[in-house]
Amino acid sequence: MIIDCHGHYTTAPPEHRGFREAQLARLEDPTLPALGAAEIGDEQIRESIEANQLRLLRERGCDLMIFSPQASAMEHHVPDPGTALAWARACNDLVARVVGLFPDHFAGVCQLPQTPGGDLAAPVAELRRCVEELGFVGCNLNPDPSGGHWTSKPLTDEYWFSLYEAMVELDVPAMIHVSSSCNENFHALGAHYINADTTAFMQLIEGDLFARFPTLRLIIPHGGGAVPYHWGRYRGLADRLGRPPLDEHVMGNVFFDTCVYHQPGIDLLGRVIPVDNILFASELLGAVRGVDPETGFYWDDTKRYIDALDVPGEDKRKVFELNARRVYPRLDAQLEARGK
Amino acid sequence: MIIDCHGHYTTAPPEHRGFREAQLARLEDPTLPALGAAEIGDEQIRESIEANQLRLLRERGCDLMIFSPQASAMEHHVPDPGTALAWARACNDLVARVVGLFPDHFAGVCQLPQTPGGDLAAPVAELRRCVEELGFVGCNLNPDPSGGHWTSKPLTDEYWFSLYEAMVELDVPAMIHVSSSCNENFHALGAHYINADTTAFMQLIEGDLFARFPTLRLIIPHGGGAVPYHWGRYRGLADRLGRPPLDEHVMGNVFFDTCVYHQPGIDLLGRVIPVDNILFASELLGAVRGVDPETGFYWDDTKRYIDALDVPGEDKRKVFELNARRVYPRLDAQLEARGK
Repeated sequence: MIIDCHGHYTTAPPEHRGFREAQLARLEDPTLPALGAAEIGDEQIRESIEANQLRLLRERGCDLMIFSPQASAMEHHVPDPGTALAWARACNDLVARVVGLFPDHFAGVCQLPQTPGGDLAAPVAELRRCVEELGFVGCNLNPDPSGGHWTSKPLTDEYWFSLYEAMVELDVPAMIHVSSSCNENFHALGAHYINADTTAFMQLIEGDLFARFPTLRLIIPHGGGAVPYHWGRYRGLADRLGRPPLDEHVMGNVFFDTCVYHQPGIDLLGRVIPVDNILFASELLGAVRGVDPETGFYWDDTKRYIDALDVPGEDKRKVFELNARRVYPRLDAQLEARGK
Repeated sequence: MIIDCHGHYTTAPPEHRGFREAQLARLEDPTLPALGAAEIGDEQIRESIEANQLRLLRERGCDLMIFSPQASAMEHHVPDPGTALAWARACNDLVARVVGLFPDHFAGVCQLPQTPGGDLAAPVAELRRCVEELGFVGCNLNPDPSGGHWTSKPLTDEYWFSLYEAMVELDVPAMIHVSSSCNENFHALGAHYINADTTAFMQLIEGDLFARFPTLRLIIPHGGGAVPYHWGRYRGLADRLGRPPLDEHVMGNVFFDTCVYHQPGIDLLGRVIPVDNILFASELLGAVRGVDPETGFYWDDTKRYIDALDVPGEDKRKVFELNARRVYPRLDAQLEARGK
C-alpha cells in the first residue's frame, strides 16, 4: 500500500474559514458574539474531499493520506490562547470527520493550539484529546509560532519538553511545520517553509535532544528543506561542533518527506539520505498545484519521481509504506486491526 | 585559469579583531578613546595569506580568489553608522592590501557599512571608494542587517535602489551574503546563511527587480541555498504567482556559486541550473574546514566536485573562469590588462 504522510485539508468548506474570520473579528471587537465552530454537513465534507484529495490519491495510485489541517491557516501568531484553542479544536474536529467518512483513505494528524511563547499545557491537552479520543496518529509542531519573526526557543530547549514527553508517552511523531508568514521578507511557501525545515535540522545538530528523548520522532517536511542538498555541509558542521556523525546523532529520530517537486531533487534525496529516513509525501493540495510544462505532469505528483528512482523495490516499499508504519505506530496498529 | 569567486579574509591578523573589540567597547563606554584601525605590517598580512588561502589555492590548482572581508564579522546588526563605516573601511583597506601584495591571486570585494534599516548613502559611498580608489570588483550585500531578525525590506524594495543604481553605474555585482546570527534559532553557518540565500531568491521571484535594473547582477552563494534542490517548487511557484518562467524572469541576472560540500549536491546543481549561471567557489577558509572521513578530502575542496561533473570541458571552463569574467567585468578588464 502507498501512504502519503503529508496532506492538508486545504479544501475545507468555506463556513470553516467563516468561523475563523468571526474569531478574528471578535478579537478586534470584543462586543461581537462568540460563535461556535461552523455547522458543516457530512455531504459538504464528502464533496470537498472526493473532488480533490481523494480524487488525486486515486488518480495517482495512492491509498492513504496522513491528513492534517491547512498549515498556512494554523496562524499561531495570533496571541490569544482561547482563540488558538477553539480554532485548533475546530480544525481537528473537521479532520476527524474526514477520517470518519473515509477511514480507508485518511488518518488524522492534529494542529496544536500554539501561541508565540505560550504555555504548552493546552497544546499537550489537545494532542491527548486528538490521539486518545479522535484516534489521531501524530501532530504538526510549529517551531516558529510568531510566523517569521522567530521569537521562540529552539526545538532543543526545555520549553518544548512537556510536549515531547506527551508525544513519547502517546507514541506519536510530530511533523515540524510552520504556518503563514507575517514577515514580508519570507514568502510562506517559497521561503518560510523551507527555511524552517533547514533551521530545525540545524538546531537538532547543535543540541542533543535525542539523548534525552531517545524514542522521539520528528518528520521534517519538504524534503528536509535545504539539508540533503547541503548534506556535506551538515556532516562537516556536526564534526566542527564536536557532535557525533549524523547517523548516530539525529538520523535515528529524524525523517524527511518527499515533497520535492522535480526528479533531480528526489534523485538527490534518494542518493544522500538513508532509505529508512525517507517517507513518501506529496503535500497535496498544497504549495504548487499546477502542471510542469516540461513534463506534462503535476509538480506535486511526487509518486512519479519515486517510481523513477533507481533503487531496489524493497527500498521503495520502505519509502511508500513501511517507514510510515514504523514512524506512526498508531497508524500501523489501525491498519493491522483492519487486516491491512 | 581557475577563479574562486567566494573567499573571505577569515585569517586576518588578530590586531584587526582588536580594533573591532575596541570599537564595540567604546559603544558601551563612550569615555574610552577612539582608536584608528590597527597597524598591521605587510609581513603579517603576507604570512596570514601564504599559510592559508594562498597555500590552499595552490594545493588545489586554483589561480585567483575573489576576496572579501570575513562575512560573519561584518556584524551589521550594530546600529551605530559611524562604527559600521569605520569597521567596513578598515576591513576593506585590509583586503586591498592583500590584493596589493598578491595581485595575481586575489581581487577585492567590499563589505558595505550597512546598519539595520539605515540610510544607504554611506554604503554607496564606500562602494564607490572601494571600486574607484581601491580597484575592487564587487560588493557583499547583506539582505538582513539585523542578523537574523529580518527587520529590513525585501531586496526588491526601493529601499535598496540607490545601491543598485551605483552597482549598475560602476558595473559591479553583489554577492547576497548575511553576517552573524543574533537569533538563537539560527546557527550562522548552518541555518542563517542558507536561509538567506533561499529567501533572497524567492524575493526576486515575487518581485520584478530586473525589469527596473536589467543589468544588475546578483550572486547567491552556498549553491543558491535550498533553491536548486527545490527547483521544481520555484518553477511552480513562479507559475502560480503569474511570473514568467525563471529563465526569463531572474536567471539573466542571478548566479549561484558552488559552495556545496559533497559530490551529489554539485551534481544536482550542474543538472538543474544552466551552466551560464554557475560560478566556481569554495568559501575557503570558511564554514567547514575539516576533512570528510568518507572521501579523505577537505569538504570545501569544491574543485574536485566540479572536476568530477559529467559535463563538457567547455562548460567547466565557464564555471571555472568565463562566467566569473562576465559577471565581474572589472576583474576581466584587470586580467586582460595583465595579458591573462
